[in-house]
Amino acid sequence: MNKAESLRVPAESLREFCCACFEKLGLGPAHANITADHLIFANLRGVDSHGVIRLKVYAERLRAGGTNARAQPQVVRQGEAEALIDADNGVGQVPAVQAMKLAIAKAKKVGVGLVGVRNSNHFGAAAFYAMMALEEKMIGFAATNSGPTMAPAGGREARLGNNPLAIAIPARKRLPIVLDMATGAVAWGKIFMAQQEKKKIPLSWALDKNGLPTDDPDKAADKGLIQPLGGYKGYGLSLVIDIFTGILCGSAFSVQVKSLYRNVAQSSHCAHMCAAVRIDRFMPFAQFCRRVDEIIDLMHSCPHASSVERIYVPGEIEHETQQRRLARGIPLNPVLKKELAALGDELDVSPPF
Amino acid sequence: MNKAESLRVPAESLREFCCACFEKLGLGPAHANITADHLIFANLRGVDSHGVIRLKVYAERLRAGGTNARAQPQVVRQGEAEALIDADNGVGQVPAVQAMKLAIAKAKKVGVGLVGVRNSNHFGAAAFYAMMALEEKMIGFAATNSGPTMAPAGGREARLGNNPLAIAIPARKRLPIVLDMATGAVAWGKIFMAQQEKKKIPLSWALDKNGLPTDDPDKAADKGLIQPLGGYKGYGLSLVIDIFTGILCGSAFSVQVKSLYRNVAQSSHCAHMCAAVRIDRFMPFAQFCRRVDEIIDLMHSCPHASSVERIYVPGEIEHETQQRRLARGIPLNPVLKKELAALGDELDVSPPF
Repeated sequence: MNKAESLRVPAESLREFCCACFEKLGLGPAHANITADHLIFANLRGVDSHGVIRLKVYAERLRAGGTNARAQPQVVRQGEAEALIDADNGVGQVPAVQAMKLAIAKAKKVGVGLVGVRNSNHFGAAAFYAMMALEEKMIGFAATNSGPTMAPAGGREARLGNNPLAIAIPARKRLPIVLDMATGAVAWGKIFMAQQEKKKIPLSWALDKNGLPTDDPDKAADKGLIQPLGGYKGYGLSLVIDIFTGILCGSAFSVQVKSLYRNVAQSSHCAHMCAAVRIDRFMPFAQFCRRVDEIIDLMHSCPHASSVERIYVPGEIEHETQQRRLARGIPLNPVLKKELAALGDELDVSPPF
Repeated sequence: MNKAESLRVPAESLREFCCACFEKLGLGPAHANITADHLIFANLRGVDSHGVIRLKVYAERLRAGGTNARAQPQVVRQGEAEALIDADNGVGQVPAVQAMKLAIAKAKKVGVGLVGVRNSNHFGAAAFYAMMALEEKMIGFAATNSGPTMAPAGGREARLGNNPLAIAIPARKRLPIVLDMATGAVAWGKIFMAQQEKKKIPLSWALDKNGLPTDDPDKAADKGLIQPLGGYKGYGLSLVIDIFTGILCGSAFSVQVKSLYRNVAQSSHCAHMCAAVRIDRFMPFAQFCRRVDEIIDLMHSCPHASSVERIYVPGEIEHETQQRRLARGIPLNPVLKKELAALGDELDVSPPF
């Protein structure tokens, strides 16, 4: 990014701006806060694809009614270890936070908690929810289904979302491990970059419009699809996540899930699943954390290829970005800055720049 | 395979042979039965890498003491939703079956059951345990860690196992979905085949001895390593499985896990995790199964690439193989036949051919 053109905004100012926008869009203060926190969390960790870049489409959906601004998520079923929440078609962040809190409360009592959410919308970065378990000395999980963008292995039509899974694991002296991965081989952004740079892409990334693997990013972008991670394995993972969220929770699945962008007046009806596991039911917490430190050190100390500078564990790059951005602000490119300024104008909220 | 050289043995005869061998090796009848059932299950489903081909090394380990023939697995901790079993260094199949039964019993009571196993050995095909949940109208999970064969992304030394994960989901008119996948990009067998056929391999499969991706199967086989599935994602999954099994259960992890083959007098100290989720705590079971049928149909009916004959869901190929082999017997190649005959001789058990 051209530094001259890039603007940096303190995280707290950007958070307040988002929060004020959400309140103007009809969300109550508590819900506006959760959703704003979530977008800023993604930006701070360098996951800009899930940060304030989504504010515009969230606003469009809230205004068009595709997302219910006055939603009141409710627990509709529950037992000792599990529960189901109906999101009332609101923003996905609010019921997902509620689900993770409930999963943690259940795990406190019986060792494991598993809470699903139905009739929801885009819930953003899955790591946010999984990481809520860390301060409770638990392992956290979060997954969601999403609008169809991938074909089953061998297919050439989108029937499954690029469904993500996040897992957060506490450590002691080292950083917690936070794995947050989609089940596709790659994000579209990387294919668009290859197009701009006129570079070939690996044959495992995308399909052309005939369902054949292609190394030409232009052919991928012309009605092609992202391939599932590693072919049939990523397909299997995406399918299983769809069943565990959409099907088990009684929400939309496969082609029934509506895209965040396609029709802003239409609810997504996606579903999420959150889980927490109480570590001290298996071994003393401090001992567990020391063991996690040990495995992290074993990864870091692994001899590496000459082309590689250092070995990371999942979540480490994001944590370092977060430290940097907390100190130096969140970068906004000119297009995004203009978009946020225009939204602020429409909603009568002063932008933080 | 050359049909003239290939022998087919009825599953039941082969099972009885395995069972008799295990009893001669010191396992009690119940444990011998479970372990034999498991090996035959793998062969029936076409997962020959986990079938009777393992009998020889199992025998060597039982005789050398690396696997404890008289092991009595015990529940060492338990709560409402979770438990931990110490395998007493016996064959992995026995405590894993016990763990899955206990997970199912816990899920019956509180909705979810999660049971770990420590101080164990090779547990074979993970699908076996996950599928135990199907007849109980539950979703089943099973995972294990294993001896190190993969490097973390960027590394060039084995620090993680090709740790597998299995998930079984019931359907109604369709077959259950059974995903059983390792976290490596590919099995070594495929690289050996490319060597024999003098073909290049995809760059995403293996590393050479310097930790660099190679498309030359000879370089991969010369002190190289399998790559994790899709690079950093497969690395993350393998690491998380190691933590959820080895670390959480208080067993060996990463380089501490001993290979099945390296030193037969040494216990593997690997760990497993089994889980069950009661479906009717989320929605009526019949409705869930109809919805699973629907998503299976959506996969099957997806338009496919001209090079592809049909689209499968996970577990379908294995089920079809199972039907065929139940009717026609399990094929044994000449090398394996000779190996089994020699073992039968040593143990004074008549081979089933």
